[in-house]
Amino acid sequence: MPIGEIFRHDTIKKIILKYKTIWALGHAMALMGWDLETYMPQDGIKDRSEAFAELEALRQRLVKDPELEKLVNEAEKDSGSLNDYERGVVRVMKRTIRIAKAIPEELIRREAKVTSEATVVWKRAKSKANFDLFKPYLEQIVEIQREKAEKLGYEEHPYDALLDLYEEGLRTRDVEKIFNELVPATKKILEAIRSMGFYPSHHPLEDREYDIDAAQQLIRDILVGFEWPWNRGRVDESAHPFTIEMGVNDIRITVRYEGRDIKRAVYSLVHEYGHALYELQVDPRLAHTPIGGGVSMGIHEGQSRFWENIVGRGPWFIKWLKERLDKHIGYTKSYDPVEIYRYVNTVRPDLIRVDADEVTYNLHIYLRFDIEKKLIEGTLHPSEVPMYWDNKIEELLGVRPRNVAEGALQDIHWSHGSIGYFPTYTLGNVVAAAMWTRMGGPDSELLRKLKLRSIRNWLKERIHQWGATYAPKELLRRSLGVELTAKYLVEYLEWKYLELPNKLNEYIA
Amino acid sequence: MPIGEIFRHDTIKKIILKYKTIWALGHAMALMGWDLETYMPQDGIKDRSEAFAELEALRQRLVKDPELEKLVNEAEKDSGSLNDYERGVVRVMKRTIRIAKAIPEELIRREAKVTSEATVVWKRAKSKANFDLFKPYLEQIVEIQREKAEKLGYEEHPYDALLDLYEEGLRTRDVEKIFNELVPATKKILEAIRSMGFYPSHHPLEDREYDIDAAQQLIRDILVGFEWPWNRGRVDESAHPFTIEMGVNDIRITVRYEGRDIKRAVYSLVHEYGHALYELQVDPRLAHTPIGGGVSMGIHEGQSRFWENIVGRGPWFIKWLKERLDKHIGYTKSYDPVEIYRYVNTVRPDLIRVDADEVTYNLHIYLRFDIEKKLIEGTLHPSEVPMYWDNKIEELLGVRPRNVAEGALQDIHWSHGSIGYFPTYTLGNVVAAAMWTRMGGPDSELLRKLKLRSIRNWLKERIHQWGATYAPKELLRRSLGVELTAKYLVEYLEWKYLELPNKLNEYIA
Repeated sequence: MPIGEIFRHDTIKKIILKYKTIWALGHAMALMGWDLETYMPQDGIKDRSEAFAELEALRQRLVKDPELEKLVNEAEKDSGSLNDYERGVVRVMKRTIRIAKAIPEELIRREAKVTSEATVVWKRAKSKANFDLFKPYLEQIVEIQREKAEKLGYEEHPYDALLDLYEEGLRTRDVEKIFNELVPATKKILEAIRSMGFYPSHHPLEDREYDIDAAQQLIRDILVGFEWPWNRGRVDESAHPFTIEMGVNDIRITVRYEGRDIKRAVYSLVHEYGHALYELQVDPRLAHTPIGGGVSMGIHEGQSRFWENIVGRGPWFIKWLKERLDKHIGYTKSYDPVEIYRYVNTVRPDLIRVDADEVTYNLHIYLRFDIEKKLIEGTLHPSEVPMYWDNKIEELLGVRPRNVAEGALQDIHWSHGSIGYFPTYTLGNVVAAAMWTRMGGPDSELLRKLKLRSIRNWLKERIHQWGATYAPKELLRRSLGVELTAKYLVEYLEWKYLELPNKLNEYIA
Repeated sequence: MPIGEIFRHDTIKKIILKYKTIWALGHAMALMGWDLETYMPQDGIKDRSEAFAELEALRQRLVKDPELEKLVNEAEKDSGSLNDYERGVVRVMKRTIRIAKAIPEELIRREAKVTSEATVVWKRAKSKANFDLFKPYLEQIVEIQREKAEKLGYEEHPYDALLDLYEEGLRTRDVEKIFNELVPATKKILEAIRSMGFYPSHHPLEDREYDIDAAQQLIRDILVGFEWPWNRGRVDESAHPFTIEMGVNDIRITVRYEGRDIKRAVYSLVHEYGHALYELQVDPRLAHTPIGGGVSMGIHEGQSRFWENIVGRGPWFIKWLKERLDKHIGYTKSYDPVEIYRYVNTVRPDLIRVDADEVTYNLHIYLRFDIEKKLIEGTLHPSEVPMYWDNKIEELLGVRPRNVAEGALQDIHWSHGSIGYFPTYTLGNVVAAAMWTRMGGPDSELLRKLKLRSIRNWLKERIHQWGATYAPKELLRRSLGVELTAKYLVEYLEWKYLELPNKLNEYIA
């Protein structure tokens, strides 16, 4: 590895050399995760779980190696003579070491034990729509997360410590500011959508069944259209689509074919493609270093949402998509492009987050953020969550769960101990809209002419190539000149849902 | 893991706890190896190789952990109060630590560097049939292996040290004794086969092409017939079939479909099945411990050869196989069972080891053993290998390579640095024949009635369940009451090739 090209500082070189073992463990665990979801024989889960736990503990030990910390501190003291990449290495390592050292092994073990049981119980509780089964686990999980927040430390709000785990530097205050603007604006947009009647709440194509083989061909064709580098990546099937990165030349995505409503497979692919592209376009010279991958969940989600919603559900994508749908799925032929556009852009205030459209999605996230924040600050007790949820979702979206499976038990996240993760989804929408604005918004040539290669390069130059060189907020400031704000997202939604219907032909033609 | 059931000694428990991390690394590397051969995107090899090297170095560090060694020595001192399993743990750990400590890191790095280049050069040299390209690499590899032998130490012959790496306790003397009996006996059998004329040197079915989809169905059907546990294993495709074990509940085999001569796919499957069955039947209570897998290459190969040759190419297997061939491949229908038996039992003295039948195979191994031994003791120089090879193979089999690609460059092993590995193939045949004898030989009810489940149980009780509890020679002595000798293999070959043709109908009917 010619690390000398950009990593010149001796101490940094030593850090990178030590880090390579940590990277290799991450590589192995990424493959183990991918295999678990794709090809692993069913009973392999027992061995796999034990191996995961061992390797994660080993990784922690390597991260906490006092020699590594000494090198990092040494490099930090000489910060003035480091370049941006080298400073990035120090920043990421300090953060990684700080988190590893803050959380005692005992707490990690307790969390692993509780959450592995909780995931099983959650599944049963959801299938029986019985919150009481899950309640004692949620109580323990909240308690553990609160302890974790105390161990990690925070300046303003204990929830900040948890947010930061998923999104470096994100604070409760940032998220509140975003939702304070986004929630009322979204409600207004939803009202206008209803009164205009252009965007349907349901489209007949959603009920159409498709042939799985044909859909597999369609997915391959879309990726070929995206110039997917088959020598550096794969596409497989899994129950829940995901992207995994095992190195700059091995990035894998998965899709799911449900046999009905083809747009679901298409857009989950385009979403994962956005994640994959980020990793594919990181500067290869950063490979195997602490800054060699995407910088945060939120920036990552920004890339996937940009491709899924802004490129893929935009008017500019419709002819390109319809051509391929017509070829492989056939029954789309009798629908004109405007109908296809309406089919992929239904807006339906409803109960289930994972089925939500790009307008209502953030309201689902707001609900979860609000509950998580209150659980962590202790102003809401786990036992109160179902009732609080039902009231709040009705207030936000005008729909009320018939049972707790459609309400507080719908997501797996809490059973995994993931509290503080949900806001990164909305952050993704915020980031995607900021990129859209900087790309030119409604007037973007790249989008209007669907110059896919130029779009990729635009993203590469501004965001992807840097990997984790800059912290998320700094990256947004440097590369897009934006702060964390809902402004661009609101403008994007207003344009797409209130203005565009009247001039759609200009964009689709 | 209820290790208390069989591992009661406190020090042993501590060893097993420490070993679990080493096991987990092995699990990850096994998956990385499997993926490399099956699904990894082409350019992923760079990341994969770097990760392998890092994790292997990490594994070495963990094996050489002084605390682990202290525990092992402590347990050894208290040997009298250990049960057989616990003594097995001590034996395997002592051996693993001894090997890791003997070979200096510098030598490992040098070997890794030379062999990774050598593998590429070997491929080119073979394709150009030009030994000179490969010669300097073979010289370095032999030199490194000689150094390794000195570091490892030996009592009688430096080659012993290398043999022991692949087969615990195997000595040059053992292998010589086997071949001293086996080589002349094989030559006699070959002569008799030629004069009897029953076993063909070529069968017309070898030229028949088959449909890959149909062959995949056939392979699945054979595995279903073997009651393959799909919840604990997989079958995939790869260029070179192999078996890999990632834990007691995750064992994977691969097959290869060449489109011609269906027996090649069938018997490579049956061979790998034999390997897989060994791992599938290890006592699950030994999982994640140093004795939780097959004990050695030779015993492992014994299992695969037993299934491939003794079960699969035996007269007892023909009707079972023909039923499935007829169903999926079709053109076998016009051949009677005796013809199918002759088709799967061609005997052809020829040049290429991997294409050799069970009679001539050991002569190929003898040639390699003879050359390796001389290279290591320094009585043959790498530059002399091609000529020596050609003369020797002509003397053994009556055929002479037209070029070095058919001779000394045919195998990949030396380019990998594997010197001392080949004899385990013949050891496998020796072990398989000993098992056959103990199972009842020609009169075995289990074989004659093809009681597959009983055969599996027989193997499980005597060999498989023990994992690496007993060293190979001890296992053979305890479970089969045999020493390492070619006696049973010669008896088996004489029975099958000289006696059986006259009473084949008794066995096939």
